[in-house]
Amino acid sequence: MDIQELAEKVLAGERRALARAITLIESRRPDHRAEAAELLDVVKRSDRQALRIGLSGTPGVGKSTFIESFGMMLTAKGLRVAVLAVDPSSARSGGSILGDKTRMERLSRDPRAFIRPSPSQSELGGVARRTREAVALCEAAGYDVVLIETVGVGQSETVVAEMSDLFVLLLAPAGGDELQGVKRGIMEIADIILVNKADGELKPAAMRTCADYAGALRLLRKRPQDPDNFPKARTVSALQEGGLEDAWADMITLSDWRRETSHWDARRASQARHWFEEEVRLGALARLSQDKELSALMDQLGTEVAKGLTSPRAAAERVIAKLNAV
Amino acid sequence: MDIQELAEKVLAGERRALARAITLIESRRPDHRAEAAELLDVVKRSDRQALRIGLSGTPGVGKSTFIESFGMMLTAKGLRVAVLAVDPSSARSGGSILGDKTRMERLSRDPRAFIRPSPSQSELGGVARRTREAVALCEAAGYDVVLIETVGVGQSETVVAEMSDLFVLLLAPAGGDELQGVKRGIMEIADIILVNKADGELKPAAMRTCADYAGALRLLRKRPQDPDNFPKARTVSALQEGGLEDAWADMITLSDWRRETSHWDARRASQARHWFEEEVRLGALARLSQDKELSALMDQLGTEVAKGLTSPRAAAERVIAKLNAV
Repeated sequence: MDIQELAEKVLAGERRALARAITLIESRRPDHRAEAAELLDVVKRSDRQALRIGLSGTPGVGKSTFIESFGMMLTAKGLRVAVLAVDPSSARSGGSILGDKTRMERLSRDPRAFIRPSPSQSELGGVARRTREAVALCEAAGYDVVLIETVGVGQSETVVAEMSDLFVLLLAPAGGDELQGVKRGIMEIADIILVNKADGELKPAAMRTCADYAGALRLLRKRPQDPDNFPKARTVSALQEGGLEDAWADMITLSDWRRETSHWDARRASQARHWFEEEVRLGALARLSQDKELSALMDQLGTEVAKGLTSPRAAAERVIAKLNAV
Repeated sequence: MDIQELAEKVLAGERRALARAITLIESRRPDHRAEAAELLDVVKRSDRQALRIGLSGTPGVGKSTFIESFGMMLTAKGLRVAVLAVDPSSARSGGSILGDKTRMERLSRDPRAFIRPSPSQSELGGVARRTREAVALCEAAGYDVVLIETVGVGQSETVVAEMSDLFVLLLAPAGGDELQGVKRGIMEIADIILVNKADGELKPAAMRTCADYAGALRLLRKRPQDPDNFPKARTVSALQEGGLEDAWADMITLSDWRRETSHWDARRASQARHWFEEEVRLGALARLSQDKELSALMDQLGTEVAKGLTSPRAAAERVIAKLNAV
């Protein structure tokens, strides 16, 4: 494959080239991995920045409908929109949350939109790297908005937040008895909470739920990266396309403010550093686990420690001694 | 020092021996570190378990008054109470949150109580290990309750939660305008929220604040380790010793339930494993940073990545290549 040529086509915004480029970075073949690294370095010179929006919502909140309506609104404004997914469950379930493009039929036919399903990889580390690099490719290809979707299994929201400029949590209205609440730790990373289905019979419930979350957000300490009135909660109706313009206006307000106050650049810089250190950590751990004796020792001592048979300090010292002897 | 003799005295519950033992585990001298490891292994055979209560509260919430009143109530029941602190700020501020024993004058004179100030160590990793091991020593010495206090700077609440059986967040009543809210991520780990100063003029504000937090807790998803109605929020008055019996009853309910449902053992096992892996990680990183070339490369590449001059993947690959060559 001619990487230089592929890079030019990606930079020219050719969708088919972008799809091929993402396939390349997803590959685990060593020769492909070298090519992928080269490709990423070449497209890096574009300096284009999309607005990266992380979006989390459990099944049933109407996430596909929201992405379709919200994405169509953006493309109608002349914006180019890419949709990616971090779905650590795809390998287990055999499917992927974006595998079925019929979920977003109109958006997937829109020439200004690019939808890419989550690959089937079992471990979050691999999915994270692939998505992060796919985001970089979409930016180089000139997309204005990159939506990074997740269902929020395990640590996936944290992973998505670490590659987003802002993070949106999509919720459904809570019924009287069925108030389940959000997973802990999510309130911490949400910049905007959208309560969907504010239409028809569910509208009053959506407004109540929104008020509940707005109240909860006010209990959290103000973060330096937030202007007044953020994080905020509002209702939307993806079905009736209600509140979407307001939600978009909020995102623009927030991202403009962060750009002006240099929080935007600082966040991107610290995210890049985070992913670098994460890659080193993964690489160093992979090196440890390649040493069969060492990884067997880790397993054995981990079990002994959990059973209380030895102290964490003593067990760790045995591993470190072994490490020094390798 | 005769470690065997020191261990016997700790196991016999001698306060002076306990204090000496903690001084030993705090030492960074290599010979002391070997003795500390031996000591911990000897006292481990006691199999005693205290109720480890993590307690967080920012300055001004009345934490010292609470610990004094709560501790005196427990010792009056015949229970032995140890108070430790995780205070990552002590090195910077030059003092420590428990350094001034006059803060808890009555409790510090109580023969059933043991109060130990936080040592002056700059990095949280060292404070965490020392506190964790001091907890183990207090348990071996027969203390029934170990209170682990923190002011909540940086990651210190997470560290305390990882060595506690239950986590209590102490808050002050919020005035109308001055609602500052709790640090993000804390709601995630709190089992019990106590709004202090529910006395005199502040009582109505304390009750409102308590209702606000109770509402916010209901928005969070139920965790498997919680019985019905937990996590919960209630008001207390440390000054007038009000609500303390109820708060203690909640802690007993929660810990009994977790013992019966085996969440107690599972949590302790996973905490031990966590600390083991953390120690290995710290040891492995220390080994990396001892290699001057490697740590200089990490610094340099981290800056380049943050500036966007190179990609996290390419930078990490250079470090890993170097690592393999070491």
